[in-house]
Amino acid sequence: MGIHTYFQSLTDLERIIRCPGRFKFQEHSVSAHSWKVVQYAKTLADIEESNGVVVDWKKLYEITSSHDYGEIFIGDIKTPVKHYSLELRAMLQQVEEGMVAHFIDEHIPEEFQHIFRSQLREGKDDSVEGKILEVADKLDQIYEAFTELQLGNTDKEFILMYRNALIKIKGIQLHCVDYFLQHILPDIVIAGSKSSIDFEQITKDALAS
Amino acid sequence: MGIHTYFQSLTDLERIIRCPGRFKFQEHSVSAHSWKVVQYAKTLADIEESNGVVVDWKKLYEITSSHDYGEIFIGDIKTPVKHYSLELRAMLQQVEEGMVAHFIDEHIPEEFQHIFRSQLREGKDDSVEGKILEVADKLDQIYEAFTELQLGNTDKEFILMYRNALIKIKGIQLHCVDYFLQHILPDIVIAGSKSSIDFEQITKDALAS
Amino acid sequence: MGIHTYFQSLTDLERIIRCPGRFKFQEHSVSAHSWKVVQYAKTLADIEESNGVVVDWKKLYEITSSHDYGEIFIGDIKTPVKHYSLELRAMLQQVEEGMVAHFIDEHIPEEFQHIFRSQLREGKDDSVEGKILEVADKLDQIYEAFTELQLGNTDKEFILMYRNALIKIKGIQLHCVDYFLQHILPDIVIAGSKSSIDFEQITKDALAS
Amino acid sequence: MGIHTYFQSLTDLERIIRCPGRFKFQEHSVSAHSWKVVQYAKTLADIEESNGVVVDWKKLYEITSSHDYGEIFIGDIKTPVKHYSLELRAMLQQVEEGMVAHFIDEHIPEEFQHIFRSQLREGKDDSVEGKILEVADKLDQIYEAFTELQLGNTDKEFILMYRNALIKIKGIQLHCVDYFLQHILPDIVIAGSKSSIDFEQITKDALAS
Amino acid sequence: MGIHTYFQSLTDLERIIRCPGRFKFQEHSVSAHSWKVVQYAKTLADIEESNGVVVDWKKLYEITSSHDYGEIFIGDIKTPVKHYSLELRAMLQQVEEGMVAHFIDEHIPEEFQHIFRSQLREGKDDSVEGKILEVADKLDQIYEAFTELQLGNTDKEFILMYRNALIKIKGIQLHCVDYFLQHILPDIVIAGSKSSIDFEQITKDALAS
Amino acid sequence: MGIHTYFQSLTDLERIIRCPGRFKFQEHSVSAHSWKVVQYAKTLADIEESNGVVVDWKKLYEITSSHDYGEIFIGDIKTPVKHYSLELRAMLQQVEEGMVAHFIDEHIPEEFQHIFRSQLREGKDDSVEGKILEVADKLDQIYEAFTELQLGNTDKEFILMYRNALIKIKGIQLHCVDYFLQHILPDIVIAGSKSSIDFEQITKDALAS
Repeated sequence: MGIHTYFQSLTDLERIIRCPGRFKFQEHSVSAHSWKVVQYAKTLADIEESNGVVVDWKKLYEITSSHDYGEIFIGDIKTPVKHYSLELRAMLQQVEEGMVAHFIDEHIPEEFQHIFRSQLREGKDDSVEGKILEVADKLDQIYEAFTELQLGNTDKEFILMYRNALIKIKGIQLHCVDYFLQHILPDIVIAGSKSSIDFEQITKDALAS
Repeated sequence: MGIHTYFQSLTDLERIIRCPGRFKFQEHSVSAHSWKVVQYAKTLADIEESNGVVVDWKKLYEITSSHDYGEIFIGDIKTPVKHYSLELRAMLQQVEEGMVAHFIDEHIPEEFQHIFRSQLREGKDDSVEGKILEVADKLDQIYEAFTELQLGNTDKEFILMYRNALIKIKGIQLHCVDYFLQHILPDIVIAGSKSSIDFEQITKDALAS
Repeated sequence: MGIHTYFQSLTDLERIIRCPGRFKFQEHSVSAHSWKVVQYAKTLADIEESNGVVVDWKKLYEITSSHDYGEIFIGDIKTPVKHYSLELRAMLQQVEEGMVAHFIDEHIPEEFQHIFRSQLREGKDDSVEGKILEVADKLDQIYEAFTELQLGNTDKEFILMYRNALIKIKGIQLHCVDYFLQHILPDIVIAGSKSSIDFEQITKDALAS
Repeated sequence: MGIHTYFQSLTDLERIIRCPGRFKFQEHSVSAHSWKVVQYAKTLADIEESNGVVVDWKKLYEITSSHDYGEIFIGDIKTPVKHYSLELRAMLQQVEEGMVAHFIDEHIPEEFQHIFRSQLREGKDDSVEGKILEVADKLDQIYEAFTELQLGNTDKEFILMYRNALIKIKGIQLHCVDYFLQHILPDIVIAGSKSSIDFEQITKDALAS
Repeated sequence: MGIHTYFQSLTDLERIIRCPGRFKFQEHSVSAHSWKVVQYAKTLADIEESNGVVVDWKKLYEITSSHDYGEIFIGDIKTPVKHYSLELRAMLQQVEEGMVAHFIDEHIPEEFQHIFRSQLREGKDDSVEGKILEVADKLDQIYEAFTELQLGNTDKEFILMYRNALIKIKGIQLHCVDYFLQHILPDIVIAGSKSSIDFEQITKDALAS
Repeated sequence: MGIHTYFQSLTDLERIIRCPGRFKFQEHSVSAHSWKVVQYAKTLADIEESNGVVVDWKKLYEITSSHDYGEIFIGDIKTPVKHYSLELRAMLQQVEEGMVAHFIDEHIPEEFQHIFRSQLREGKDDSVEGKILEVADKLDQIYEAFTELQLGNTDKEFILMYRNALIKIKGIQLHCVDYFLQHILPDIVIAGSKSSIDFEQITKDALAS
């Protein structure tokens, strides 16, 4: 009962592994991923702020840290399934929101319910914060895929993951995205230069698409 | 390409863990679960046969061994999500069937496609074999939950799992179900007698519901 | 007691790891291996049937799913030990059969003992089903070794495993073996073409030996 | 080089396990812990805000998410060692700060160095945010210890951990601490009522000390 | 080639898990077990020496540290199999010795072969050192079983392991065994007093048998 | 209490992982490392003896097997931290010795305390045994790093580990070090010849420095 139940639920995300099924040298839990997204977003927002953009830090904090909280109820559903059709995607989002709402109604004391409803909402929207979250989320996908490929993982799925995340990122209008493309991405490509995977080519193709 | 791709895909089920998120002393992969279901079903079918029922062993073999094959594409989706609404359940089943069909079209040589479409179909129906599969599947849920509770897992979800699986099983009209209720279930309850969980009571309630 | 004890024993095979000692990027439990053998055998038998051979599906189901059941008692004994001498091999088989027989006598209700004795017997013989089991078992050895080598495992033991399994398979007279050699094996070699291991050469040598 | 090196370093915290050496049913990585601290702090700050206190959300975001970043260089040093003497504690803190400073100098582009120096500083101070971080950090220690004891862990160290964290928390002057003591802690004690550990007594003693 | 091959082989024992198949909260590798046996034996020999017995420390060092080296070739074979019959036990010992001898012949430089043959011999004999090794080996079996039972493991096999190891130890004529029975064993029983297992009774029965 | 507490503490070293944080294909516990050091040291001492040097085997046994015992209290502290400054290194050593001494005072019966104080002392000194321990400890660092690099680990830290260990070893005046450099090290380099890492060059540089 109460906020204790909410606090205790957090540990479930330590036991949900991202990208289940595919062979990975290094597994990542949803909680580890969430923490990295919080960290990436902090730096991306700093870069945005240094370009004169105003950042709502409270909103950023809330949407980045809780962005995968719903997976406690819904698990980590494979991307090809989540995006099979707009209809299914909408339905799964509805289920997740329904389960989160039900949890709040059942366990969160009344005086805090509005805060939780606000905080556990879907964070990816057209605001600066929402877009930074989208970039940070995709950035972790880039790093997860890059690391596997660099270590010698032969599963072509990781090339697709790297590529799709990059395409997603470059389409988002933010100063920190420009910074990423100009300064961070080249360093990733250099780091991958000794690998048998041609990161330079894959990156070029993705940026050109 | 070819059947090699199908053979190589099987190993993915070794890396999908059932019931993700909840704390478990013992994790179970979908491939281990599938093997146990094949084994349970074999014995249940033997009991059915010994009561004069005709069993189509080829059909049983096919539907038990492949019953979770689709999870290679769709992952292990939490039960409360799968069954959130009839609409979502139907949609997820559709997605799974679509992905399996797509895989067959793309990788299985034409001369074997009809065999694969037949074998990788949904196996739970009203035939003897389909019902035995349902019982075997639920039986593994009983054993998974029972073992966790016996080891001291405090998550009430396992009591629900045990209970719901039992209720499901008792509603299926088969001789082997009668045998299970009369001879196997009592032994499970005895085995759990030293636990702090009152298996006798939970079992009684489930059978009476 | 009873069939409950048999059902509960199955989970032990989830905790016995194949090929202990050697470094592996990916571990495989005996239960996962057993499930894959069931799957391979199903497809191999389909290919055999499509060539006009009659398959006893009940027998195939029984001998493939239970083919490593005895390891619950005897563990996964390293191949070089099992085959050290004909005398030791016979003795270990005797021990395994003795322990399985003892288990059946002690736990299986009398009316089902003959079924269990029949089902938990050694399945590899000269029948079509027995030979299919042999091929399926060796096929998993090929895939286990191939995957390790492809990921960069430097242990030469896996080259030996790959090679020996191939030599074993090609010596078995079955239509599905011909199919495997003509259609599946070439795809495996192609999949391994980017690896630093020369799969083409190793495969050629094995087939020529 | 560059921010890429910083982003890539984050994953190290997924591989540092808290409380090494002691037997635990459930291991926790420093990244999972960091994420939970971010989450706890968010809710604690909400409670504080609802009592009319002004919270610097940007500061809270920074100090909670990065509070264990230094462990990338220094690892998770056992508490009895860290606090062996004020002299050693100061020295280790100096080492950690030195290594973090060195990392920033070497890898972070000049234009962002001041931001990183500010963000990766020691966060626990007398500000509202610093105190909330301290409470959140100790709260995770309570939950980690409580869960182990509830599952049957016999290591008395976890009773000490639970107790010491509670004593630390109750000494911090915050509205959210009052809320925790009045509403959340009782729920933890209730949740632990079926355990063989007398949480009620241990909690009483800690609060009275 | 050479001693490098011997040095490199040692790591295999980190990947062989003792007691495979049975559910354990805590797994133990053969290398960890070997190290603990070296440690126990050191203390047991100190106690023996303090009673005026002369200990050949070089011999003790050699036979304790290498006592399970042969498992690199033979794996960890389940006790009920190893001891199924005197004939099989002798044969397995022969196989192990043969494989170790072959390894020495093939990889150890000639000038050191006699040292290795002496060091990798079977150490359990009637000498003081051989008996201390036997006690140390069984002592680890006691601790492994005791810990599992204390944590709530319901597998009766661990009660048997605890009991059999105790019976074996008490039958060995050494001063350190007397010390163990009088001073160490009572402390183990006290440590297990809060467990649901009646260690006092099991211990009494074993000592009386 | 008593020696039971000492015996029971040993298992903690099975749960402390060396080199935490860095990605490794193969993790090594401190107990496995300790066992390998015992084994290396045995062979190195044999080589030393064969060159006419007198070895105190009891001393060697004691200092090799217990050389990391203190990590039960202090954990595995990263080398860059341990060696940050002579002052910190001395302080950490003091803490470790203090904790070990405290443990002996509290748990070891009086009549054995002097033995334990002698045995759990720092073993690396200028004696033959102390130098052999130093070589054996660094040898395991060579093998740990070499294996990771051979498997494709891209973390340059392992090249540094390999190099530094080699530099340390070559500076120690022992016959077995000469033997290592002339006979064992070349075999390691040969074993690494197919790797993308230029072991020959790295080894040359280290030996020349």
